[in-house]
Amino acid sequence: MTPFELYNPTKLIFGTESYLRISHEILEGAKVLLTYGGGSIKSNGVYEAVMKELKNFQVIEFGGIEANPTFETLSIALDIIKKENINFLLAVGGGSVIDGTKFLAAAALYEGDSWDILKKGIRVTKALPFASVLTLPATGSEMNSGAVITRKETGEKLGMGSPVLFPKFSCLNPEVIKSLPQRQLKNGIVDAFTHVLEQYMTYPIGADLQDRLSESILKTLIDIAPKVIFEPYDQTIASNFMWCCTMALNGLIQKGVPTDWATHMIGHELTAKYHIDHAMTLAIIFPNLWRYKFENKKEKLAQYAERIFNVNTGSTEEKAEQAIQKTLEFLHSIDVKTQLREYTENYNGFSDEVKQTFETRNWIALGERKDITPEDVRKIVEMSC
Amino acid sequence: MTPFELYNPTKLIFGTESYLRISHEILEGAKVLLTYGGGSIKSNGVYEAVMKELKNFQVIEFGGIEANPTFETLSIALDIIKKENINFLLAVGGGSVIDGTKFLAAAALYEGDSWDILKKGIRVTKALPFASVLTLPATGSEMNSGAVITRKETGEKLGMGSPVLFPKFSCLNPEVIKSLPQRQLKNGIVDAFTHVLEQYMTYPIGADLQDRLSESILKTLIDIAPKVIFEPYDQTIASNFMWCCTMALNGLIQKGVPTDWATHMIGHELTAKYHIDHAMTLAIIFPNLWRYKFENKKEKLAQYAERIFNVNTGSTEEKAEQAIQKTLEFLHSIDVKTQLREYTENYNGFSDEVKQTFETRNWIALGERKDITPEDVRKIVEMSC
Repeated sequence: MTPFELYNPTKLIFGTESYLRISHEILEGAKVLLTYGGGSIKSNGVYEAVMKELKNFQVIEFGGIEANPTFETLSIALDIIKKENINFLLAVGGGSVIDGTKFLAAAALYEGDSWDILKKGIRVTKALPFASVLTLPATGSEMNSGAVITRKETGEKLGMGSPVLFPKFSCLNPEVIKSLPQRQLKNGIVDAFTHVLEQYMTYPIGADLQDRLSESILKTLIDIAPKVIFEPYDQTIASNFMWCCTMALNGLIQKGVPTDWATHMIGHELTAKYHIDHAMTLAIIFPNLWRYKFENKKEKLAQYAERIFNVNTGSTEEKAEQAIQKTLEFLHSIDVKTQLREYTENYNGFSDEVKQTFETRNWIALGERKDITPEDVRKIVEMSC
Repeated sequence: MTPFELYNPTKLIFGTESYLRISHEILEGAKVLLTYGGGSIKSNGVYEAVMKELKNFQVIEFGGIEANPTFETLSIALDIIKKENINFLLAVGGGSVIDGTKFLAAAALYEGDSWDILKKGIRVTKALPFASVLTLPATGSEMNSGAVITRKETGEKLGMGSPVLFPKFSCLNPEVIKSLPQRQLKNGIVDAFTHVLEQYMTYPIGADLQDRLSESILKTLIDIAPKVIFEPYDQTIASNFMWCCTMALNGLIQKGVPTDWATHMIGHELTAKYHIDHAMTLAIIFPNLWRYKFENKKEKLAQYAERIFNVNTGSTEEKAEQAIQKTLEFLHSIDVKTQLREYTENYNGFSDEVKQTFETRNWIALGERKDITPEDVRKIVEMSC
């Protein structure tokens, strides 16, 4: 186990009545910017419920924050924040809206060009207070301090984070799942599942408890996935789904262990080129990344096979092979495609493109051992086509 | 899963170099009261290491906080805090020192008789900032906001808590385990193990993830217990032990589930009468409480038997029986006694005494269903003799 610091001051308010806490958690007299995305909150009842709780506050709305939130859109919101002297942000949406709102919280108090926060990797030391009402379980943004922002103009997609960028509170009402289309439920499951794997499927480091905590989330997600995706709404199932997504990326399971994240880095290129949903790109990449880095990962793969899929016979290598096989079976069982060719015929030459893209960046080798080069990425993408 | 709020702003600093963070985490110019217990920190190197980090602060020491910290001792410290205008408390010790320091943090800013905080169950809204350097993994006090304080004069042992009573930070250095006697290692294991069970061994409520998180801690504790207790210091094992103890009672696994805590309530009486170590009293009570409340708990007992001890055959009842049997075997394997008669011959009539004690209190029935009456307590104690 490596040394670590764990700090997470977000107040998680979980349950069907969680919105009732909103007015108590926001400082009296606050002037609130309510941020949201494409507008589904106006048809599913969430907007109305939240606005009811905000009746004693001055509220200005800013909608239209897109999936993969852009610097361009957020810059418009930033102007409003400054012009209107907004002093509290309430994100009502999924990971993109919350990520975008984190950028706004940081940018509002940043002196200088706000793009520098991302471009220069500045860890801001002050931010506007903000909170979230989660409408789409998947990214964990509701209980972490990180965000990913895209600049349309340049095609850059960059991460940011700071200990001052935890939501003050986040309301998690499992009923939001009722109105989600199957595609988004599937994305949520696979996103959370891969988040855990990025922090788990590396090499053994004697972090027994963290391993078991990660396995808890994986096992629960596998158990509930078909029910979440294919069966009618059930509050118990929805609650477990929502809680798994938060726990998958609230920082807990990464403490004291190596993490990978190469799948995410590579997956982003599939979204950029083919507009495949983020989570679905992960399912294309990670099984092949496991194959390619088999020697590095086989011990953890075997442990995962044993504990998640009850594979109790065979050598470490055989169990590790089974781990990949059983994971693919799981993904296929919930109708998740695991090869790029299932999305497009136009994949020839893509692996070379990705290699070049990675080469032209300030390249840092990827993976838990920092040993995945652009050429390795090319091979992984080739296997994933 | 029941609705919940999760809030835990303690910064956990974990690792052999964690003390190096102390001076960075305390506000410049703070006047620090360093609180500790019987003085083992002065022989095991912890005191010296901590004082080195405090060299730029004014520090006053207050030692002698006892196991089961008393209002009487703490009142002396409180006078010092007020007289010396202390504005930061640093607890260097185990759960008792940290609990005592929480009381001090609350009492220092409380106007009125500080015993009222406990007696009247007042949730204080302000407290002096405080932190901890943990020297004895067991209670989880380093990452929660609760404390138990005893008043010698009256024999009362009362709990307190408030969201303002989380340590600002806690340093967890696994090396402290090196100098702990076997008895305290055993206490730590059993204390943490029982903390999880109090939050787990109730009835099914569809909290799949929380169940699995609890099982993660139980499984890890069972795996490492013999190594922690009987084998020479190993940093990986020590780290897992320490992290399990914190995770067992930092609030996470209790969210959304019913909790029991009757074992703790009853166990306190065994400590009061026979001075048996707190953790050891728990091991005497809970197996018999499980037997007595078998119908209430059999579903969770069976689940625990399956997932922790791989008991895969038999009816729910048979599995539940096996759960009790296997748990006793585990406790015996680490030399933990599970009957009162193993500690004293003087147990006749004790169950009646306990019944009377519970009857004379403002009685609230115990257990996750609030159905354990003083007469039930008598029977459970009788079974435990």
